[in-house]
Amino acid sequence: MAAVSVNDAHRIAVPQLDMPPRLLLGPGPSNAHPRVLQALSSPQVGHLDPSFIALMTEVQELLRYAWQTDNSLTIPVSGTGSAAMEATLANSVEPGDVVVVGVNGYFGERLCDMAARYGADVRRIEKPWGEVFDLDEIGEALDAHRPAILALVHAETSTGARQPIEGVGELCREMDTLLLVDTVTSLGGVPLFIDAWGVDMAYSGTQKCLSCPPGLGPLTFGPRAVEKLARRAEKVPNWYLDLTAVSRYWGSERTYHHTAPINMNYGLREALRLVAEEGLEKRWERHRRNAQALWDGLEAIGLRCHVPFEHRLPSLTTVQVPEGVDAKRVAQTLLRDFNIEIAGGLGQLAGRVWRVGLMGYNSRPENVSRLLDALERAIMAA
Amino acid sequence: MAAVSVNDAHRIAVPQLDMPPRLLLGPGPSNAHPRVLQALSSPQVGHLDPSFIALMTEVQELLRYAWQTDNSLTIPVSGTGSAAMEATLANSVEPGDVVVVGVNGYFGERLCDMAARYGADVRRIEKPWGEVFDLDEIGEALDAHRPAILALVHAETSTGARQPIEGVGELCREMDTLLLVDTVTSLGGVPLFIDAWGVDMAYSGTQKCLSCPPGLGPLTFGPRAVEKLARRAEKVPNWYLDLTAVSRYWGSERTYHHTAPINMNYGLREALRLVAEEGLEKRWERHRRNAQALWDGLEAIGLRCHVPFEHRLPSLTTVQVPEGVDAKRVAQTLLRDFNIEIAGGLGQLAGRVWRVGLMGYNSRPENVSRLLDALERAIMAA
Repeated sequence: MAAVSVNDAHRIAVPQLDMPPRLLLGPGPSNAHPRVLQALSSPQVGHLDPSFIALMTEVQELLRYAWQTDNSLTIPVSGTGSAAMEATLANSVEPGDVVVVGVNGYFGERLCDMAARYGADVRRIEKPWGEVFDLDEIGEALDAHRPAILALVHAETSTGARQPIEGVGELCREMDTLLLVDTVTSLGGVPLFIDAWGVDMAYSGTQKCLSCPPGLGPLTFGPRAVEKLARRAEKVPNWYLDLTAVSRYWGSERTYHHTAPINMNYGLREALRLVAEEGLEKRWERHRRNAQALWDGLEAIGLRCHVPFEHRLPSLTTVQVPEGVDAKRVAQTLLRDFNIEIAGGLGQLAGRVWRVGLMGYNSRPENVSRLLDALERAIMAA
Repeated sequence: MAAVSVNDAHRIAVPQLDMPPRLLLGPGPSNAHPRVLQALSSPQVGHLDPSFIALMTEVQELLRYAWQTDNSLTIPVSGTGSAAMEATLANSVEPGDVVVVGVNGYFGERLCDMAARYGADVRRIEKPWGEVFDLDEIGEALDAHRPAILALVHAETSTGARQPIEGVGELCREMDTLLLVDTVTSLGGVPLFIDAWGVDMAYSGTQKCLSCPPGLGPLTFGPRAVEKLARRAEKVPNWYLDLTAVSRYWGSERTYHHTAPINMNYGLREALRLVAEEGLEKRWERHRRNAQALWDGLEAIGLRCHVPFEHRLPSLTTVQVPEGVDAKRVAQTLLRDFNIEIAGGLGQLAGRVWRVGLMGYNSRPENVSRLLDALERAIMAA
């Protein structure tokens, strides 16, 4: 066989990495805490090193604190929040299971798509984007569909609405339904009580209120969810996210499944350490206070929030785009001239809102001031 | 509803991160290059920021160089190498497809498991762990099974064997079979020519010969694989790894799918930049030279390699454990007393070999010396 020689067509010369100093006030990622960035570049150890195994135990315990749960199966899966989202469904849904999904934004839509790929009989309950479901509506849906799983989005990143979860767990228990909750934009920034609220499964991301870069997807499974997983007739139809195997690596067996993202776990440990240092009550109150300052400031410059006060997320605010203003152009000006990232709307809210995040480390008074000033200028210039 | 108060049971106080200075000479992860660790902690930008989009283009182009391919669909998926492995199967296998897997180690076994979860009719061809398949054997298997996909492991991390791929692509084209190749422990360290060898799909990890921490899974799909994907009757039964959607984010549309692991991509860019700086020919030769020094040194202290010379991987060597020596104890001594990680054998080779990696940045003469000296002492002490 003739020897092959190396082709240099794609051997491009690129300069040293030099990223612009963005202030990330969109729907996420938000800026990582400097201590988290520093932790990321700590020296590597192996994924079965005693020092890493000790770190895994710490990460799990600190996640339990952040989520307010005693669930043993509380781990970060080795992908972003979307992977954790899929892991909850891949492991809990069996073909033919009825799954009721509360769809009041983009992530409700995605839950329907994912659940259907695992063979669920998906039943949608719907609200306009920005509204939430009340307990009666949820109770009626449970009565009508008697689902195996009810999925709700606690913090809808596409709308800024906070879905109340209190009381839903009790309704689900009456029906033998598992309660699955999206907490991507609430974990570490918005009051959240997995055990007290009777949530059976939840997932999140690291790049929102935890102030860690994206790359890990925390999830938690309670006893009822673990039991459904143990009773499955067939293997989980997703190898990478199969919690029956992943949990043996994170559990006491420490059996090799795949190589964990070592350095991302360094970062997550530091991010969760910061949550424990500050304390959840103070952290939630900080998010609330800075969001209130943002809302007051927006009103002062003549802008309105899309979501009614009582259901607003402190972590993510949707701001109505005034008549005649080009939403996209304003966001581009903020990025180009002020190094501030905010985002536009998705789906029903495309072109109608901006999405402004004040998450984790970024939830600080100086960021509120900086944004309000820049936003006012950018709107005037548009 | 009664207000819930925060439970501090899991609010543990953990000290500042302080990982031991390991030299990772196992089957991976290997130590990241210092420039890669530094890049990891660069300031974050958003996943749709123009600066990140430019970086994505660079990463793709540099991956094409490392893999020696012009394939447009060449990207890192947002999980570890195992996620990339699953992505190749999830996207290419349709229920009922015959998939022939060359099983001569742990990763061949895993390919069978994964393919079956996607409904493949898996046909195994087998060899003892450490041996490889010759072209005649592969041709016979293609004749006998006429598969949609043939999966081979170029670099079997569990055995240290290098499966020759030259000529297999031609055989597969005659049968209209797609050739899928595991290159986890070869990309960036062992001669590998995706296009010249007619490989249709390949996947890899970042934590082996690329010297980047684990957390991304490069993959490449050639035109025939892309065509099969486009012809699928049903959606890919895996949302997170669905390349029809992921490729729209990495392609010219830049459509949001999930938030990419920003900082991990900083690291991968730097790792691939180092590959392009050094050049593949020099890099492959460096791996070969240092492996030869290891093999000579092992022989000099009376140890033997498990794999015959002509099929040895320069990146991963399996060393036979001498009669009467406790393999696990030696590895523990190396870790505890010398801060060197090596690994034991898996499956058929459990207890019978040590696995020693010289990958990427770690493939250096001083590491060979340090290991040989420490290994000899640890065996004497055992």
